[in-house]
Amino acid sequence: MLDQQAAGDPRTFGTATRGETVPTVPPAETAADAVDVSALLERGRTLATPVLRAAVDRLAPPMDTVAAYHFGWIDAEGNPAAGDGGKAVRPALAVLSAEVTGASPETGIPGAVAVELVHNFSLLHDDLMDGDEQRRHRDTVWKVHGPSQAILVGDALFALANEVLLELGTVEAGRATRRLTTATRALIDGQAQDISYEHRDRVSVEECLEMEGNKTGALLACASSIGAVLGGADDRTADVLEKYGHHLGLAFQAVDDLLGIWGDPEATGKQTWSDLRQRKKSLPVVAALAAGGPASERLGEILAADAKSSDFENFSEEEFAARAALIEEAGGREWTAEEARRQHTIAIEALDAIDMPDRVRAQFTALADFVVVRKR
Amino acid sequence: MLDQQAAGDPRTFGTATRGETVPTVPPAETAADAVDVSALLERGRTLATPVLRAAVDRLAPPMDTVAAYHFGWIDAEGNPAAGDGGKAVRPALAVLSAEVTGASPETGIPGAVAVELVHNFSLLHDDLMDGDEQRRHRDTVWKVHGPSQAILVGDALFALANEVLLELGTVEAGRATRRLTTATRALIDGQAQDISYEHRDRVSVEECLEMEGNKTGALLACASSIGAVLGGADDRTADVLEKYGHHLGLAFQAVDDLLGIWGDPEATGKQTWSDLRQRKKSLPVVAALAAGGPASERLGEILAADAKSSDFENFSEEEFAARAALIEEAGGREWTAEEARRQHTIAIEALDAIDMPDRVRAQFTALADFVVVRKR
Repeated sequence: MLDQQAAGDPRTFGTATRGETVPTVPPAETAADAVDVSALLERGRTLATPVLRAAVDRLAPPMDTVAAYHFGWIDAEGNPAAGDGGKAVRPALAVLSAEVTGASPETGIPGAVAVELVHNFSLLHDDLMDGDEQRRHRDTVWKVHGPSQAILVGDALFALANEVLLELGTVEAGRATRRLTTATRALIDGQAQDISYEHRDRVSVEECLEMEGNKTGALLACASSIGAVLGGADDRTADVLEKYGHHLGLAFQAVDDLLGIWGDPEATGKQTWSDLRQRKKSLPVVAALAAGGPASERLGEILAADAKSSDFENFSEEEFAARAALIEEAGGREWTAEEARRQHTIAIEALDAIDMPDRVRAQFTALADFVVVRKR
Repeated sequence: MLDQQAAGDPRTFGTATRGETVPTVPPAETAADAVDVSALLERGRTLATPVLRAAVDRLAPPMDTVAAYHFGWIDAEGNPAAGDGGKAVRPALAVLSAEVTGASPETGIPGAVAVELVHNFSLLHDDLMDGDEQRRHRDTVWKVHGPSQAILVGDALFALANEVLLELGTVEAGRATRRLTTATRALIDGQAQDISYEHRDRVSVEECLEMEGNKTGALLACASSIGAVLGGADDRTADVLEKYGHHLGLAFQAVDDLLGIWGDPEATGKQTWSDLRQRKKSLPVVAALAAGGPASERLGEILAADAKSSDFENFSEEEFAARAALIEEAGGREWTAEEARRQHTIAIEALDAIDMPDRVRAQFTALADFVVVRKR
C-alpha cells in the first residue's frame, strides 16, 4: 500500500478532485528520487516495533491489553490482529537521525520507541477529549474499553516513554528525555489551543498555524533529532534537525487538513468530509474565511448558521460538498497546498546548515517528499 | 491546625470513637519527640510552593488557571484563595532527604516540586476516573472545568514534573527523573488495580496492600529519597530512603483507610463513612472480610446485598454506622491500626542501615510519627 503511494512521482500530483488533493512538489535537487521511501519506513517500523511491543508488555493487566488494542496488535476480543500501525514516519526519522553523526540506526531505536509512545499517549487522550469514535479504521479505545482505560493507558504510555529513554542511564538519554519533555509540553499546549478554538467563532490563520506547530510540529521535530541526540550530536546539530522536523510537521499537518476535507475515505479511514462534519477550524477553512471576497463571505455566513443548527448531524453529503466547494472557491484549498509546499521547502533547506552523509540527507529529503504526497 | 495535630503526644491516641481512630505509636527511642513537625512541614511548604507556583505559571492558558484552581490558589471564579494545599508531607520529606548526605535542604526543592506535580497529576486523573466530586473541601476540577481540562492539565503537570528536574541538566537530575518515572508507573499500576478491584466481589488483604503500595507507597518512597539523589547520594542510600518512604506510605494509607470510615468529616473534608459510601474495598473492609467468624460473615452478606442494591445511594447514616460497627466487630479496625503501627516501625528501622546526621534521623522519625497520628 505504502509502496504504491511512495513510489508515485511527487511531481505528477496536484489535481483537484477528491482523493488527489496532494500538492505539487518542486523538482528535488538531491538524490531523493533514488531513495526507496517504503524501505525507509519499513526499516523504522522493523527496528522500533519489537522494542515498542516489549515496552508495552511491561504494563500491568489490563493496561497491556488495552494498549495492544490501541496499537492494532489485537482486536477488541483480544485475538491477534495485523493492525494498521500508522505510516511510521516518526520511527523512520528517529533511526535515520542517529546516522547524522555516524552512529548506527539502532542507536535511535529507544528514541523512536519513546516518540511513538508519546504520540500514542496523546492519541488516546485526544480521542477521548474530542469524542472521536474511530481511529485507523477501528473504534477508539474509550469506545471499546471505556474512558478510564483511555486515560490510564495514555498516562502509562507517557511514563513508559520516559522509562525507555532513562533506563539507558546515559547523559545523552537525559538530554533526549529533556527534548522529548519539551515536545510533549508543546503537544499538550496545542491540544489546549485546539479545544479552546472549538468554542470560538473565528480563528486566525496565525493561531491555526501556531496550534498545528504545537500539535504536530513539536513531536516531528523531536523524532527528527532524537536519534542524533542519542548518538551524541551537539545541541546545534539537534536544533537544526528539530527545525527540519518542525517545518516537516507543518507540511504534514497542512496535507492532513487537505485530506480531512478532500481525502478518500478508503485511504484515510475517516468519513467523507470528516473535518467539516466535526466543524474543525483547520487550515483550508481558516484560510478561506480570511481570504475575503464573495465566496469567503458566503462561507462565513453558512458556517455561522451551521454552528447554531440543531440539525447539523443529519446534513447530507451534498451539503458538505457544497461547503467544501465554497472553501475551494475562496482559495482555502490552494492556500493550504501552497503552505504545505512552502513548509516542505523550509524543512529541506534547513538541513543545509549541518554536515551529514549524502545518503542520509537524500533520505531526509525523500521522507519530506513522501509526507506531502501521501494520500492518508 | 496542623500544629495542634502534630503537637499531640502520639502515645495518647488509640481510642475507638469516631474522629479518634488513630493507632497507638510505641515510645520513640530517638529524639523525635523534640522535633517540631509543624515547622518541618512548614519548611517544605515554604521552600517548594514558590517554585511550584512558578512552574505552574508556565502552563499556557487556560491550563494555568485550571491548575491554580486545583492547587487551591484561586477559587472557581478566578479570585485569589488561601487554599488548603494539603498536609505537605511529601515536600517536607524531599527537602529533608537532601540533608542526608550533607547537601542543603534547598537542593531538594526541584525534587519536592516534581513529586508534588506528579501527585497532583494523579489526583486530577483519579478524581475523574473515580467520579469523585469533592477534594480538599472543594469541587474537583472535572466538576468545575470539565473532564477535558482535568485530563489535559493532569498531562501538563506530569510533563512539567519531568521538565523541572531535567532542566537542571545534571547527571543527578537524570537519576532522579528515572526514579520518579518508576514511581509514577507504580502509581498508575495502583490506580489500574484500584479500578479493577471495584468490579470484583472479593479482594484479598495481600491484593489490597499491593495496590496501596503502588498508589501511595511508591511516591512517598520517591519523595523520601529524591532530595538525596539530587544531592549526589549513591544508589544504596537512595534505596534505603525509598524503603523508609515505601513503608511510611503503607502506614499513611492504613491511617487514610481508617479515616475514610471513622474520620471526622470536619477534619477530613469528606462525607461521613466516605469510603463505605463509595463501596471502597479498603484495608479495614478486606481485613474484616478475611477474618472469619460471625461478624465477618454477616458483613460479607450485607456488602454482597449492598452491591446489588438499587437504593444504596439513599442509605441512612445509621445503615452506614451499622456496617462500620460490623467491620470493627470483625476486627478490621484494629487489624488496620496494627498494620499502620507495623509499617511505621519498619519504616523507621529501615533508616538504621545508613548514616545520616542525628538531627535528620530524628526528623524522619518525627514525620513518620506524624503520619500515623494525623486526623486528616
